Amino acid sequence: MRLSQYFLPTLKENPSEAQIVSHRLMLRAGMIRQSSAGIYSWLPMGLRVLRKIEQIVREEQDRAGCQEVLMPTIQPAELWQRSGRYDDYGKEMLRIKDRHDRDMLYGPTNEEQITDIVKMECQSYKDMPKMLYHIQWKFRDEVRPRFGIMRGREFLMKDSYSFDMDYESSKRAYNKMFVAYLRTFDRLGIKAIPMRADTGPIGGDLSHEFLVLAETGESGVFVHKDVLEFDIPGEDIDYNGDLQPIVDKWTSLYAATDEKHEESAEAELGDKLLAARGIEVGHIFHFGTKYSKPMGATVTDKDGNEIDLQMGSYGIGVSRLIGAIIEASHDDGGIIWPESVAPFSVGLINLKSGDADCDKTCAKLYSDLNAAGVETLLDDTNERAGAKFNNMDLIGLPWQVVIGPRGLKNGVAEVKNRKSGEKEEIAIDQLVAKFSA
Amino acid sequence: MRLSQYFLPTLKENPSEAQIVSHRLMLRAGMIRQSSAGIYSWLPMGLRVLRKIEQIVREEQDRAGCQEVLMPTIQPAELWQRSGRYDDYGKEMLRIKDRHDRDMLYGPTNEEQITDIVKMECQSYKDMPKMLYHIQWKFRDEVRPRFGIMRGREFLMKDSYSFDMDYESSKRAYNKMFVAYLRTFDRLGIKAIPMRADTGPIGGDLSHEFLVLAETGESGVFVHKDVLEFDIPGEDIDYNGDLQPIVDKWTSLYAATDEKHEESAEAELGDKLLAARGIEVGHIFHFGTKYSKPMGATVTDKDGNEIDLQMGSYGIGVSRLIGAIIEASHDDGGIIWPESVAPFSVGLINLKSGDADCDKTCAKLYSDLNAAGVETLLDDTNERAGAKFNNMDLIGLPWQVVIGPRGLKNGVAEVKNRKSGEKEEIAIDQLVAKFSA
Repeated sequence: MRLSQYFLPTLKENPSEAQIVSHRLMLRAGMIRQSSAGIYSWLPMGLRVLRKIEQIVREEQDRAGCQEVLMPTIQPAELWQRSGRYDDYGKEMLRIKDRHDRDMLYGPTNEEQITDIVKMECQSYKDMPKMLYHIQWKFRDEVRPRFGIMRGREFLMKDSYSFDMDYESSKRAYNKMFVAYLRTFDRLGIKAIPMRADTGPIGGDLSHEFLVLAETGESGVFVHKDVLEFDIPGEDIDYNGDLQPIVDKWTSLYAATDEKHEESAEAELGDKLLAARGIEVGHIFHFGTKYSKPMGATVTDKDGNEIDLQMGSYGIGVSRLIGAIIEASHDDGGIIWPESVAPFSVGLINLKSGDADCDKTCAKLYSDLNAAGVETLLDDTNERAGAKFNNMDLIGLPWQVVIGPRGLKNGVAEVKNRKSGEKEEIAIDQLVAKFSA
Repeated sequence: MRLSQYFLPTLKENPSEAQIVSHRLMLRAGMIRQSSAGIYSWLPMGLRVLRKIEQIVREEQDRAGCQEVLMPTIQPAELWQRSGRYDDYGKEMLRIKDRHDRDMLYGPTNEEQITDIVKMECQSYKDMPKMLYHIQWKFRDEVRPRFGIMRGREFLMKDSYSFDMDYESSKRAYNKMFVAYLRTFDRLGIKAIPMRADTGPIGGDLSHEFLVLAETGESGVFVHKDVLEFDIPGEDIDYNGDLQPIVDKWTSLYAATDEKHEESAEAELGDKLLAARGIEVGHIFHFGTKYSKPMGATVTDKDGNEIDLQMGSYGIGVSRLIGAIIEASHDDGGIIWPESVAPFSVGLINLKSGDADCDKTCAKLYSDLNAAGVETLLDDTNERAGAKFNNMDLIGLPWQVVIGPRGLKNGVAEVKNRKSGEKEEIAIDQLVAKFSA
């Protein structure tokens, strides 16, 4: 993309309405704009990051054997009356009456809806087990939306649901999601630590939250330092094999949020204790028959008995993850994107737009890099050099390649790594090979 | 995907609630299930088709120079009060009060919201022109939703918006979308014909509808037969070049819906007149300053004058297209997917699951085809042969490959083309080459 044509309205000043760094930087980097309180429009660069995160989440769900569906945003109230949650949910649920005065709602989550689908389509043990997910916009009418997309009202969530005939099988589904989450967050370039969690309004008897460490996190966290060094399961992990040892290992050492922590246990850890702050990016629950029983989601086993299905649900805050990644990865200059979610890999800066040699070299590099599959943003604007550097730091692409008249004489470009800040001169004819390797 | 593990609840009988063939076949083929009137959940196979259509629409928007954004589903009423449409829109608009009693709505379209974004971010002629689009769920509270996703309430739409400083430039944007639409529908495997249209409640002075011919279409259409033979612009079309000759050619011959048709003009056509039925799948409008003026979306020109922006909007019914494609492409046995949107390219039928040779050959073919990028659905169930054939015809994959004990003895599979019905025997070791070519 050429910056001169790209809809990327960056801001030099910090917007006064933003209290936390991710909100400030997303506004300044032209990623989002507020539509109304807690509701945002995604501009082209923000949407690129959102789609990359969504795709990594999807790939890891698919790898774990979860199948993608898409449920609508608007649900009938009747579904929630059957589960008993319609009255419990309170004002966070956006309640709607349609033109025929029927009670509807904008889904804050989908346990009822997916349970109804499985109830209608699965009658026999032959249809089990099932793991289904969708990535859909949700709405929670927060009383005081804040922190940009970190605590918005309309947000994108991946929610998975598992259906099994007994606890052991359901536990295997839970373990699959546990492992898929470790892999997902690792691929997103963040360190997310599973912690035992309260099961809250969704209910259930087994639950873990995944939290990203960040100074600005909403929760205090207390973690055995060795957890930070645990290995992430590889791409070749066999999801049909026994995953219990992986889950056991990751839950063997102390890790708790401030809601669940125990000072006595922490005292024993000594200098192995890390007290930090964290941001919740995922949450997994096993809750047995909490929804299947009231909603009548049963299957018939081999002996003709009706069995209430064992269920779990598994959420990842897809839009919220962008905020969490920025909170965990930025500096005074702006965002520092992990490579896997960066909107572009390379920011190509033409230091002297209008200079024939600079223009020609940049045009060729831009074309060659994109042809080699290296997503490149070319700054071909007439801004002065300092403004271009600052802007490129702000939007946080992993690599900056600077083409100027002085370097061109020697056939070299200056290449800067956004994260380390290291700069080196590289021969222009070596650049495509460097980035497409 | 292995059918034994795939969530694909096909139905042998026609569901009584479905009045038209696309609705019947989408239910029978396990693509969708109703959540409430006019609101559907997409099951895995339906979602695969939806995503393929969405991706082709996206690629052609990008090619035409349109940039993707994503606006939220829930909008503040205040935006629509500014344009004057809040009171006009009537009961089709789903109106909502949030917990603070603020008036909100579920967007039926996005002219106001995108105009507000451009107004806030673009002040100068240097920011022009702009072409932005998004692919987002919309809601129209139809008084009588029917025909499945063809006239649903929650539906997926691609809507683009152009902003220019004068009519000539705006006309160029209009022509870009006209050409992009020709390419999009062609890639989707359907023949969509542009017809002069009323501008309806969106307003404006230049407008075309794109209609797909199908016996079950909602509108009568009257078309000069030669229009059906016009060339589609190629992938190498230069969107910055002069597109007017293409638009002129495509609008040179008679083509009108029953709302706009003129019997006298048709009488002149003689046997060149095709009287048929059509389904609207796209609509493009130029409407000048209808929204920019009341909403104050202006930019400053080189001489310091404030200019009201010239706008156009351009819609494609992404979810509705699935219905239109099925209406235009099916037979008594079921759906006939065009290759570009088929959920899988090949349906591999194991005629005798449990037979060691059949199982082994199918497993290897399944693995080899997928590795070669040929999306394959393997029917590894224990159904009898007839049921497997009927099911494969119903879901409409372009190719069926049948592996049975008799063919295996000779090292061959039977390959059936779903559309033509032609069958041929092909050596098993030639199959991957045939489909990955």
